[in-house]
Amino acid sequence: MCPLEPISTATTKPVEVLLRVRYSETDQMGTFYNSRVLEWFECGRTEWLRATGLPYAQMEARGVLLPVVESHVQYLGRARYDDLLRLTVSAAMAGRATLRFDVKITHASSGAAVAAGYTVHAIVDSTGKPMRPPAWFLEAVETGGRTEEKNS
Amino acid sequence: MCPLEPISTATTKPVEVLLRVRYSETDQMGTFYNSRVLEWFECGRTEWLRATGLPYAQMEARGVLLPVVESHVQYLGRARYDDLLRLTVSAAMAGRATLRFDVKITHASSGAAVAAGYTVHAIVDSTGKPMRPPAWFLEAVETGGRTEEKNS
Amino acid sequence: MCPLEPISTATTKPVEVLLRVRYSETDQMGTFYNSRVLEWFECGRTEWLRATGLPYAQMEARGVLLPVVESHVQYLGRARYDDLLRLTVSAAMAGRATLRFDVKITHASSGAAVAAGYTVHAIVDSTGKPMRPPAWFLEAVETGGRTEEKNS
Amino acid sequence: MCPLEPISTATTKPVEVLLRVRYSETDQMGTFYNSRVLEWFECGRTEWLRATGLPYAQMEARGVLLPVVESHVQYLGRARYDDLLRLTVSAAMAGRATLRFDVKITHASSGAAVAAGYTVHAIVDSTGKPMRPPAWFLEAVETGGRTEEKNS
Repeated sequence: MCPLEPISTATTKPVEVLLRVRYSETDQMGTFYNSRVLEWFECGRTEWLRATGLPYAQMEARGVLLPVVESHVQYLGRARYDDLLRLTVSAAMAGRATLRFDVKITHASSGAAVAAGYTVHAIVDSTGKPMRPPAWFLEAVETGGRTEEKNS
Repeated sequence: MCPLEPISTATTKPVEVLLRVRYSETDQMGTFYNSRVLEWFECGRTEWLRATGLPYAQMEARGVLLPVVESHVQYLGRARYDDLLRLTVSAAMAGRATLRFDVKITHASSGAAVAAGYTVHAIVDSTGKPMRPPAWFLEAVETGGRTEEKNS
Repeated sequence: MCPLEPISTATTKPVEVLLRVRYSETDQMGTFYNSRVLEWFECGRTEWLRATGLPYAQMEARGVLLPVVESHVQYLGRARYDDLLRLTVSAAMAGRATLRFDVKITHASSGAAVAAGYTVHAIVDSTGKPMRPPAWFLEAVETGGRTEEKNS
Repeated sequence: MCPLEPISTATTKPVEVLLRVRYSETDQMGTFYNSRVLEWFECGRTEWLRATGLPYAQMEARGVLLPVVESHVQYLGRARYDDLLRLTVSAAMAGRATLRFDVKITHASSGAAVAAGYTVHAIVDSTGKPMRPPAWFLEAVETGGRTEEKNS
C-alpha cells in the first residue's frame, strides 16, 4: 500500500495549519525528535476534519473512529525550538473503509521542507468493526478540500 | 499539602526500579526534558504496585483508580541518553482516600542525584467518586515495603 | 520552597495563551496524562517571554539559559481531546538568580479549572553556571506583565 | 524506497528486547498512541547497537551519527497499559551511507502482532555530512546479528 495512488481530485485543495516546535519536542541533536512528526500529523488531521465541518471529537461521539493502521514519514530537514511550521494537509478515501491523510511540513518563513508523509486510517465503529462510512462522512471528505476557508 | 507528613514506617523499605534514559526523553539542552520525570515516576509506581502483589492494571479492573491530584519535582542533576537510572520508590496513605508516592532518582553507577519528588493520588471508583480503599488495598500498601524482593 | 511568596506586583498582569488538547496528550482514563501539564507550562513560558519582547530562543543565543529546578502541579479538573484551554501565565524573580513562572489552566469556554502550578528556573550561562541576570533581562521581567498586548 | 530490498543475511539473527507499555503511552482509545511505536523502535535500535558491542552513545562520541531519514509503521494490533511487548530487531546497510533497522513488535505472552516497520538512517559525521562508515562500524553491523547473546 506504499506508494498509494494519487489523491483524488476531490480534496486536492488542502488545509493549512501552523504550529511552533515545542522545547519538549527537541532532542539532544538539536532538532525535533522523529516521533513528533506523527503527533504533528495528528494536529493536521484534527484541523482538516474541523475545516470540513466535522470535528473528530464529534465523529467519535457519532460512533465513527479512525484508528491509524499505517504511517510513513520522510525526514527532509531540521527544525529548531520555536520554529514556526506550516502543515499542508489533504485527505481522500483510499478504499471502501479506509481514509488516507497526506501531510507536508515546511518552515512557514522560508518554505524549506521539514517532513512529508501520510497516515492510513481504518474507518471503524465504536466496537472496532470496519464500517462503510455513512453518507454524511463521505460528503464531508468529498467537500473537505473546498471548505478550508472556514479554518483561516 | 506540601510538604507532607513523614512517610509511615509501614513502607519505609522502598522498591527499586532501573531504567535507561531514552533518546526521545532528551532535549536540546542535552539532558532529559523536565516532564519525563513524571513519566519515570509512573514507572516507579507501576513497579511498586506490582511488588506489593497488586498490579495497577488489576486495580483498575477491580474498580479502584488512582488519578494524580498533585505532583512535585526537584531537578537535582543532569542525565544523558542511555544513562542507567535507579528509582527508589516508597508509598503511604496520606489521608483517608489519598495515597502518596515518594520517588528519588539517582545515577545507578555513581549514585549522583538526578531528581526527587512525589505524587499525590486520589483513590476513586470507576465513576471518579472518592472511596475508602478496600481492606485488600490497605493491606497491600501496609505490607508493600516488605515485599519488594519479589521485584528484584 | 513550597508555597513561595506571592508574585511581585511587577508582573501581576498576566499573559494568556490558548491551546487545544492533542489526542497524543490523552491517556486511557480519557483525560490528559499528568506530565502534559509541564509541557503546556513550557508553552506558557515561551509565549510569556515572547510577549516581553524576549523570545527564549534569542535568550539562549545570548547565553542566558533557564533550566527548570523545581515544578509543582495541582490537577483540578478533567480536559478531553480537542478541548480549548486557556493558560494564564505570570512570572517574577524568586531570588538573585532564580525566576519563577506561575500558570493557571482553565477551560476557555467555561472557565472551569484544569490545573495550576509553577516552575522555578535557575538563571545560568551557557556553561551552566548561575549568573546574575543582565539588566536587559531584569527589565524584560519587570515590564513583562505590561506588554502582553503584543501577544494577542 | 518502500518496500526495500530484503535484509542481508549478515544480520538475520535478530536482537530481542522486552518492554512494558507505560500509562503515558496510552491514549483515550485505550491502546498505545501511534507515535509511541517510533519511540519503541528507538529502544530496539539502542539495544541492537549495544548487543553489537557498539553503544550509540559511544558512536556519537566517536563522531558517527544516525539521524532518521525515513520511518514506516504498520499497526497490527492493540496493546494496553502494562502489557509486556517483545521487539525483534535486525539491521543491515541499505546503501553506501545508509543503515536500515527492521522491527517487529509482538505480545511477549501470546506472540500476537502489535506493530511492524522500519527506520532508515543516514550515516553522518558530527557536522551532519554523510560519510562512508568506518571499518569498525561496518564490522559491527556485519557481526551484529551473531552477538545478541550478550544482550540476554
